[in-house]
Amino acid sequence: MDWVSVSQLKERIGQEVELRGWLDGKRSSGKLHFLQVRDGSGVVQCVMFRGDVDEATFQRADHLAHESSVVVHGSVKADARSPIGVEVSAKGFEVVHESEEYPITPKEHGVAFLMEHRHLWLRSSRQRAILRVRAEIIAAVRSFFDDRGFVLVDAPIFTPAACEGTTTLFETDYFGEKAYLTQSGQLYMEAAAMALGKVYCFGPTFRAEKSKTRRHLTEFWMVEPEVAYFTLTEDMVLAEEFLEYVVSRVLERRRPELALLERNTAALEKVKAPFPRLSHREAVALLLEKGVPADENDDFGAEQETVLAQSFEKPVIVHRYPAVCKAFYMKKDPADPSRALCMDVLAPEGYGEVIGGGQREDSLEALESEIRRHALPMEAFKWYLDLRRYGSVPHAGFGLGIERTVAWICGLPHVRETIPFPRMLEKITP
Amino acid sequence: MDWVSVSQLKERIGQEVELRGWLDGKRSSGKLHFLQVRDGSGVVQCVMFRGDVDEATFQRADHLAHESSVVVHGSVKADARSPIGVEVSAKGFEVVHESEEYPITPKEHGVAFLMEHRHLWLRSSRQRAILRVRAEIIAAVRSFFDDRGFVLVDAPIFTPAACEGTTTLFETDYFGEKAYLTQSGQLYMEAAAMALGKVYCFGPTFRAEKSKTRRHLTEFWMVEPEVAYFTLTEDMVLAEEFLEYVVSRVLERRRPELALLERNTAALEKVKAPFPRLSHREAVALLLEKGVPADENDDFGAEQETVLAQSFEKPVIVHRYPAVCKAFYMKKDPADPSRALCMDVLAPEGYGEVIGGGQREDSLEALESEIRRHALPMEAFKWYLDLRRYGSVPHAGFGLGIERTVAWICGLPHVRETIPFPRMLEKITP
Repeated sequence: MDWVSVSQLKERIGQEVELRGWLDGKRSSGKLHFLQVRDGSGVVQCVMFRGDVDEATFQRADHLAHESSVVVHGSVKADARSPIGVEVSAKGFEVVHESEEYPITPKEHGVAFLMEHRHLWLRSSRQRAILRVRAEIIAAVRSFFDDRGFVLVDAPIFTPAACEGTTTLFETDYFGEKAYLTQSGQLYMEAAAMALGKVYCFGPTFRAEKSKTRRHLTEFWMVEPEVAYFTLTEDMVLAEEFLEYVVSRVLERRRPELALLERNTAALEKVKAPFPRLSHREAVALLLEKGVPADENDDFGAEQETVLAQSFEKPVIVHRYPAVCKAFYMKKDPADPSRALCMDVLAPEGYGEVIGGGQREDSLEALESEIRRHALPMEAFKWYLDLRRYGSVPHAGFGLGIERTVAWICGLPHVRETIPFPRMLEKITP
Repeated sequence: MDWVSVSQLKERIGQEVELRGWLDGKRSSGKLHFLQVRDGSGVVQCVMFRGDVDEATFQRADHLAHESSVVVHGSVKADARSPIGVEVSAKGFEVVHESEEYPITPKEHGVAFLMEHRHLWLRSSRQRAILRVRAEIIAAVRSFFDDRGFVLVDAPIFTPAACEGTTTLFETDYFGEKAYLTQSGQLYMEAAAMALGKVYCFGPTFRAEKSKTRRHLTEFWMVEPEVAYFTLTEDMVLAEEFLEYVVSRVLERRRPELALLERNTAALEKVKAPFPRLSHREAVALLLEKGVPADENDDFGAEQETVLAQSFEKPVIVHRYPAVCKAFYMKKDPADPSRALCMDVLAPEGYGEVIGGGQREDSLEALESEIRRHALPMEAFKWYLDLRRYGSVPHAGFGLGIERTVAWICGLPHVRETIPFPRMLEKITP
């Protein structure tokens, strides 16, 4: 008899199969048990009639603890009332391991309790749905770039110099020297783009931020494409096509999970390129019109981002922020050097920034002068400056944070459920 | 005029196009220049006739430094002598940036020099080919698991307890507590497999090893599948199918890169499941027969692995190592408890271990006793032991090291070229 997963049962109607999983729940009458069996690919109802199995087995099933591991033999029947279209008539039943009393029950638990039991909480239907959406988003991200001729170039995690201050960096002893955990692979992707044209990296990044917010993790995953000969304009088009692709692929392949999460998919259906685009100055004007304080020469805070993001049904691109509040490597707008050729993409429904990027400074002189102005150590950037010595080209890219994207697409209020084992201030276990 | 990449030129024969790239080399006669233009997707020869462009442009092209960034306008012609089947007749030519004298020349450079210039070395044809093969291997790994119903579950990088001694762990200060960089996601994947059945993680892992060898990096990428209800037997079949898939996909899609690397592909064509399988005892007998010292109760060293790997034309699986030299979580063979239900896959041509894995201990009592025997802190494993309290099941998995796999498939003697920015003892820049 074939070992079959719950997700394959629809192709096995009328056949005898073996299921291997866990007891996810049960109801009983005197004559029969309805056993919910979960195997990771799904949950199926197994109906066990007294008389179809020996009496000891029937009794065993009656008293079995939730989460016990079980093997069921039975025949697959079409069933219109089942959410998966089938149920199983149990003919044999074997207990692999009887569970102790399971700590997570259908009653409400506090978040702290669930986070402490993250290794078990993952078994719940909501968490399984979120993890599947996350995996789909990640697969979509990779397909998008792979299918368009981008080469994956993994950026290093250990980086040598604490270029922009050490306050938010995790430090480690690297055989007697100090090393820091990466906050972005961008500088490395710029080097790789000069070799391979279109590249991306995708890996964990780290930020030792002491703040406890619903949008911050100390360890989070980021994808960062970089393209030689791209300007800000082409970078914005790439970001639009990319987000549209990712969202539509999740809608196409993860409908059941979004339904389980009670996500309003109508809002996601609207994520179609092109997106509205506002310059920072236009965004400031919009904010002032709405009675929200804003300054043409200052960055936006969380409240301003939220209001901007809520002003549109689609993601909105805000570009050309004041250069003074942006990183040293951003190219200035030749039409107005007080502005950086950068952009953020803010997700709708108040989710805020999911993408940040822009065009990089490609002039050796301008970059050296910015490094001096920011009082950064020139020597640490020697290799980076080399990219402007040997065939410098216009180039641009962006970074998308995976956890914020998962939160938005799943409709979650907090990033802590968007990653299998979240790492936050005061949270490093299990 | 369309901006077209070199890789797309074959579809543009007879058309006018714009190329954007770097000058990779040139030859000249009095009347014409042969300009090799590289754009990351490939290299194409652009032929510029005196008279087809103005004299200033013709002179400029004649004196242009290697690696200068250039935009070429021209028409695409079929050319049977070209390795890519086409060349371009240049009609226009613009220098974006004239390169300074490029430090990497066609002459031989020492490895230390090249590693210091890794950000530029990536532009060379060999390094580009290796990075493309690496990207293909990674895409193949993900497709293999995604297509078979595995769910990607990212394991955390920060881990709390130094479970097995701190000598090879990188440590960081985590808001006043000690945290360590992960060496494996396995324990987390075991938890995830109980929720999702078939899972894998794929991310960077870290080892603070002081040894300088051709097989070690401090930062390397590893993929780790884990499957609920799998035993060692099914784990070995999965490993075989997986390696066959990855190698055949690289052969299918990266022939030109393998040819450039002068890889003997006949050796790779032989990587077809099933692989020869030897128990550790059988492997010891084989070694002794070949005059290599070996002990039934000891692990293999590099020399023994190399001899075993060279004894077969395919990868070879060695299983059931002595339990005493294996990790605490490995299940013992019920038929001979001195043996662990584990396996290594050794790549042929002397490459050695690329996969290590096996079946995990699923009995709470046996695992607790092993934790005590290894004098490990029971409290740190409380969550891991929970997996044996609440519906324990047989389960198995393995880990494959990406850099060793890239070295093997590309035929490289050292892992330092298998990752874009290698991190080794004394090597953390650029």
